[in-house]
Amino acid sequence: MSKDTETTDTSGSYVEKGQEFNRDTNYIEDRILDDPDAQWPVEPGRYRLIAARACPWANRTVIVRRLLGLEDVISLGMPGPTHDQRSWTFDLDPGGVDPVLGIERLQQAFFKRYPDYPRGITVPAIVDVPSGVVVTNDFAQITEDFSTQWTAYHRDGAPNLWPEESRDEMESLMRMIYTEINNGVYRSGFAGSQEAYEKAFDRLFTALDTVEERLATRRYLMGESITEADVRLFTTLARFDPVYYGHFKANRTALRDFPNLWGYARDLYQTPGFGDTIDFRQIKDHYYIVHKDVNPTGIVPVGPDLSGWLSPHCREELGGSPFGDGTAPGPVAAGEEVPFESTAAAWVK
Amino acid sequence: MSKDTETTDTSGSYVEKGQEFNRDTNYIEDRILDDPDAQWPVEPGRYRLIAARACPWANRTVIVRRLLGLEDVISLGMPGPTHDQRSWTFDLDPGGVDPVLGIERLQQAFFKRYPDYPRGITVPAIVDVPSGVVVTNDFAQITEDFSTQWTAYHRDGAPNLWPEESRDEMESLMRMIYTEINNGVYRSGFAGSQEAYEKAFDRLFTALDTVEERLATRRYLMGESITEADVRLFTTLARFDPVYYGHFKANRTALRDFPNLWGYARDLYQTPGFGDTIDFRQIKDHYYIVHKDVNPTGIVPVGPDLSGWLSPHCREELGGSPFGDGTAPGPVAAGEEVPFESTAAAWVK
Repeated sequence: MSKDTETTDTSGSYVEKGQEFNRDTNYIEDRILDDPDAQWPVEPGRYRLIAARACPWANRTVIVRRLLGLEDVISLGMPGPTHDQRSWTFDLDPGGVDPVLGIERLQQAFFKRYPDYPRGITVPAIVDVPSGVVVTNDFAQITEDFSTQWTAYHRDGAPNLWPEESRDEMESLMRMIYTEINNGVYRSGFAGSQEAYEKAFDRLFTALDTVEERLATRRYLMGESITEADVRLFTTLARFDPVYYGHFKANRTALRDFPNLWGYARDLYQTPGFGDTIDFRQIKDHYYIVHKDVNPTGIVPVGPDLSGWLSPHCREELGGSPFGDGTAPGPVAAGEEVPFESTAAAWVK
Repeated sequence: MSKDTETTDTSGSYVEKGQEFNRDTNYIEDRILDDPDAQWPVEPGRYRLIAARACPWANRTVIVRRLLGLEDVISLGMPGPTHDQRSWTFDLDPGGVDPVLGIERLQQAFFKRYPDYPRGITVPAIVDVPSGVVVTNDFAQITEDFSTQWTAYHRDGAPNLWPEESRDEMESLMRMIYTEINNGVYRSGFAGSQEAYEKAFDRLFTALDTVEERLATRRYLMGESITEADVRLFTTLARFDPVYYGHFKANRTALRDFPNLWGYARDLYQTPGFGDTIDFRQIKDHYYIVHKDVNPTGIVPVGPDLSGWLSPHCREELGGSPFGDGTAPGPVAAGEEVPFESTAAAWVK
């Protein structure tokens, strides 16, 4: 999901003057279930995930799909990083048309489902290919269902991202990460008053200090291996210094100045399935070009220098192993590679 | 001088769409000379320096006046950090009126000199108190003349900021600092196109890399003691992380990530006459509130954390001593103290 279209009013404004930012959390909540009688049953090849590289909520789904090895059963359509009032377009595809769905705008799949669809046209969304309608854009449920409903199609060695024994603690932590961090950066950047901004700033850094401390002794958020919680934190951390620190004024402390969080973020970035989904160029283009009321010039920063993402993180010293009893995913699927110029490696001299 | 009023067009815009930023460098160029027959002779108590804390060009004059001990002979008027189209106002003074000049806006002293004054109303400016007219707003000449024309009134132990033996090299270095760094940050922030911005970004960081290298083996820019060149570089460095990095998108490398420049900047900040002139709050308020076309929300960042400015810099290892054969200035003059909440110390826990 991208906040973008959620609260953009007709004037194209993201900041609501004098007000706090509040996210519209009403989604199309259908689920794809491991049940042949379900309205939307699990079925390889039937669904298409639409996920812009730029969007942190969509990024989660791309990471989980890859960690679990679902590339061959759920195809991936990728809108470009920028969009207008009518939201995400397939401008990066030949002819500006998604090659599977045959549409130019994601909006068309929402309207095909609900002709008067009144809310934001958001990614991630899953489209039923035969009918061309959106099944769901409920980002939190999508990744959970990849883990729990598509098990028959997981690759050999796929990690267990939702370990039963720590599920309660993980869900509680993920709620905090969602309200205070994932959404907290938007609350800071779209605050409509100095007072709302300062409150948002305090909430955000209080939460970051909490996870910073948690990660002092744990390699990953839930302990020795990666889980869904790590995926959810990582997509915000990857955007922190390039976008949130400057564009959203989340600037008490840069990610690279949090010793544990920065080591942790680099550890994940260097782990197959995480960093290889990050397109820093699309990320910067999206925020700096789309939010005209925050950055009216539309100029996209050249920095920051990203070479540090590839520096040694030394997190192995904490023990653990990213995939637990499982294995790392193989190479990125053909056609889904992030261009070299958009990676941290492009900054290494 | 502040760029602000220099190129603000009638729409209040600092960024000129599609164009490079070019600074208007036409000033009122009269000089105050050590010559009783001059139009404006050196005379204690006759002139008032108008210098906003926020402005880097004005900041130079406040530092040099203090280093040389001219506080008792040249008084100081300080406009507040924010202003409207008609430029700097004395909004921080009781009744919004400068207590010596009796004016609300610096504009009045410019218009008293030239009723049709067509250019920017800039700080620093020196006003002749008896007549109330601006003598000069030529910022570069003002500090040079403090050093060379007001010698009879320098305090005991005042440093020699313009050492004759290295004058040519120093002037050449200062030209580079001016065009590439002091002005370079504005060229980055007010670029009217992505192309102009990227060129400005490259020029700025090329120059910063050059001084970073120079400072690897020299404690100060010209060697063992502070000179005018250090004053000129310092005022830009003090604003770098709080403003230029985010607001002006000068974000390849933060000041705190340049090892030598950061040590050097902290060394100066901790030296009497430098850090005690820096009001971080006014600095942030100025840029983020005045440049509405860059930051339309007018929200001022809470960060960055400034506590690092007081951390050990270890630059003593390079030898030298800030004041050479001279001595440090004494306490800040009464009424000219920076409020605690605006200092780096306020961030130390």
